[in-house]
Amino acid sequence: MGAGDTDSPSNVTHECHHPNVVSVTENPTAPRKNSGFFPVVPAGGVGSRLWPLSRPDRPKFLIDLLGSGATLIQDTVARLAPLGDEVMIVTGERHADAVAAQLPDVPAANIVTEPSPRDSMAAIALAAALIEHRHGEQIMGSFAADHVIPDAAAFRDTVRTAIAAAATGKVVTIGIEPTEPSSAFGYIESGAELTHAPGAFEVEAFTEKPDPETAAQMLADGGYSWNAGMFVVSTSVLLAHLARLHPTLESGVREIAAAWDGPGRADALARVWPTLTKIAIDHAIAEPVAAEGGVAMVPGSFVWDDVGDFDSLAALLAPGADGAIRIGRDAPASLVDAPGTVLVGGTKPVAVVGIADAVVVDTDEALLVLSRHAAQRVKDVDL
Amino acid sequence: MGAGDTDSPSNVTHECHHPNVVSVTENPTAPRKNSGFFPVVPAGGVGSRLWPLSRPDRPKFLIDLLGSGATLIQDTVARLAPLGDEVMIVTGERHADAVAAQLPDVPAANIVTEPSPRDSMAAIALAAALIEHRHGEQIMGSFAADHVIPDAAAFRDTVRTAIAAAATGKVVTIGIEPTEPSSAFGYIESGAELTHAPGAFEVEAFTEKPDPETAAQMLADGGYSWNAGMFVVSTSVLLAHLARLHPTLESGVREIAAAWDGPGRADALARVWPTLTKIAIDHAIAEPVAAEGGVAMVPGSFVWDDVGDFDSLAALLAPGADGAIRIGRDAPASLVDAPGTVLVGGTKPVAVVGIADAVVVDTDEALLVLSRHAAQRVKDVDL
Repeated sequence: MGAGDTDSPSNVTHECHHPNVVSVTENPTAPRKNSGFFPVVPAGGVGSRLWPLSRPDRPKFLIDLLGSGATLIQDTVARLAPLGDEVMIVTGERHADAVAAQLPDVPAANIVTEPSPRDSMAAIALAAALIEHRHGEQIMGSFAADHVIPDAAAFRDTVRTAIAAAATGKVVTIGIEPTEPSSAFGYIESGAELTHAPGAFEVEAFTEKPDPETAAQMLADGGYSWNAGMFVVSTSVLLAHLARLHPTLESGVREIAAAWDGPGRADALARVWPTLTKIAIDHAIAEPVAAEGGVAMVPGSFVWDDVGDFDSLAALLAPGADGAIRIGRDAPASLVDAPGTVLVGGTKPVAVVGIADAVVVDTDEALLVLSRHAAQRVKDVDL
Repeated sequence: MGAGDTDSPSNVTHECHHPNVVSVTENPTAPRKNSGFFPVVPAGGVGSRLWPLSRPDRPKFLIDLLGSGATLIQDTVARLAPLGDEVMIVTGERHADAVAAQLPDVPAANIVTEPSPRDSMAAIALAAALIEHRHGEQIMGSFAADHVIPDAAAFRDTVRTAIAAAATGKVVTIGIEPTEPSSAFGYIESGAELTHAPGAFEVEAFTEKPDPETAAQMLADGGYSWNAGMFVVSTSVLLAHLARLHPTLESGVREIAAAWDGPGRADALARVWPTLTKIAIDHAIAEPVAAEGGVAMVPGSFVWDDVGDFDSLAALLAPGADGAIRIGRDAPASLVDAPGTVLVGGTKPVAVVGIADAVVVDTDEALLVLSRHAAQRVKDVDL
C-alpha cells in the first residue's frame, strides 16, 4: 500500500462528497462511465439456521426470503449495481447455473466459480486478482450475497464514503450501528476520525462474538459497531497485505487469475486451488492489519440484517390481520391462543394451538416447528 | 320393570359369579349359545378435538388411533363380542359403509343407520326397540365406539356384574374409578351395595362435569366415579322408563322398529325419525331414574380412556428412544430441546426445536401444531 492508492479515480471522492449530484446518475439502466469501483459478491453459505427453507442445494442467497419478488442475491446485486460498471459473483460450482439464471445482467465472465469452498479469503482474493488482472488496480468492495438492507440509497452513500477512505490506502470496513447488545455478531472497536478521509475512523480492533454481558458493556462504553463483513479496499492494497501475511495464498490466486481467461484455467484451478489456505478474511487481513493501523471503519446507520435465522427473518416482516407473520405462504391458517406465530411456506391449511412465538416451516422436503426463541438451534437439527 | 327381569338367562348370573369358568367360553371363534345379552355400540361423534386426524368424514371411531392395527370400533366390537351372540351398531348413514367394511362379522341387519343425528337417547332406544322386536326382551348394553379399554377381560367381568344387576330391573351404569380429579367427565355418586345384586351399588345422582376444585373435593370425599356413558339395562325396562318420561320417543322408536325389517322402514323413518326428541340418555333416563332409585352402578377398576384429545391419546402411548411419542408415523424426526414431543402422521421428515410438549399432526388435508396443555382447544380451530 502507499503510492498506488492515490491513483484511484477522482470521481469516487467526488461522488462521496456530493451525494445529491450522484443520485441523478444512479439509474441502473442509464449508461455508466467506468467508476473504478468493482463490487464483489461472495455467494457461499447455506444458511443452515434457515433449514428447511435453505438447504445445501438451495442456499439462502438463492431464495426470495422476504417475499419481495427478488432473491437475496438479486437484491444484493441491484443494490450494488449503481456503484460500479460491473459486479463480480464468486460462488460454488453447484450454484453457478442458478446464480447465472437469477442474474441475467451479470456477464458470464463475472460469475467466478470455485471448485470447492476454501473460505472467504481465497474467494475474495481470487476476485481481487482477477479484477486487477483484467482491469488494473480498482477499488473493490466485498458484500455478502444474503444480507438484507432495505435502504439501498443510504447503503450506497456509506459505501461511497468507504470508497474514498479506501482511496487513501486503507482496508475499509463498514460498521453497523448496533441497535441491541447482540451476541450474534463480531464487533469493531473504532477510534479517531481519519484526517484524509472524512467520515471514516481508525479501527482499533475486531472482536469475536461477545457474550451478552460483554456486548451490553460495549454498547454502554460506545465506540463499537457490528462487523457486517463488508470490506472496501484497493485490489493492490488487499493483495499486498496478503503477500506479506499469506504469501502462498497471494501467489496462488494471482496464478489462477492469470490463467482464468485463457485455456489454462482448469489446470491452474486443479493444481493451485486445493493448496490455498482456508481462512476467513477477518483473520487473514482485517485483524492483523487493524493491529498495524491499516484498517478504517465507516459507520453505516442504515438498517442491516444478516437474516441469520427465523427469528431475525420474522423481525423484518409485519404480521397479518390474524397476528401471524407469513413468509412465502397464502394457504389458510387458524390460530388459537397462538400469539407471535410465524408461518413459512406450505400449501396445506395450518392450525397452531396454545403455543406462543411458534414458527412452522413447511417445505416439500421437511417440516420444522420451532420456538422463535430457539431459532439459533435449528443448526443442530440432524435429518 | 319387574317380573320380566327375572327371565334373564341364568348363565348370565352364573358367568358373573364364576369368571374362571366363563373365561373358557370367551374364545370368540368358539360356538356361543344365546347369552340373552345384546351389546349395542352407538357410533357417532367426530372427535373434533382430534382434528385433523378425525374429521366429519373420518370420525375417531373409524381410526386406528393407537396404531394397534385395529380401529377403535373394531377394538370395541372385539371387546364386546364374547359377551353376546350378536352386536348391534347404530351409526350415521354417511358412515354405514365404512362401518360395515371394518366389521365384516357384523351382519348387515345389525348395522342400524340413522338418517340424521338425534342424540344418544333416540339411537339407543331404537336399538332397544329393534332388539326387543326381533328377539323379545334382552339385557342390552350400550358402549361408545371410540373409547379405549386395554384390559378387555377385566372390562367383561365388570359388564357381567352389571348384567346381573340389570336382571334385577335396574338401569345399570359402569362407574370408572377416578385416577385424578378430572373436570373432563361427569361423575356418578353412589351409595349402598344392592342386596340382590352383589357388586352393584345404588346411584344417588349423576353430576355434570365439575370444576377442578369440586372434582378434587369429590375425590377426597369418596363415593364418586367417572361416568363413562356405559349403560346395561333390560330392553323392556329401558323402554318402560322411556314410555313414562318421553312417551313420544318410546312410541316413535317402537313404530320404526316394527317397520324396520319390512318394506315400511324408509317410510317410517322419514315420517317418525325427524320428530324424535333430541336428548342424551343421561338426561332422558339416567338422571331422572336415579332420582327415583332405579339406577345402579358397578365399579370398573379397569383402565378406561375416552381419548378425547391429543393429550389423553399421547398419555396412552410410550415414547421412543428419542423421547418422542409417535402415532401413525415412521418418517424421520429430529428433536432439539423438545422434550415431550408427540408426532402424529405424516411422511415428511420433521424437526421440533425449542418447544416442550409440542404435538405435530400432519395429514394429507392439514397441519396442526399444538401444545399438549392446550389439547382441549383444538375444537376452536376454524379452518
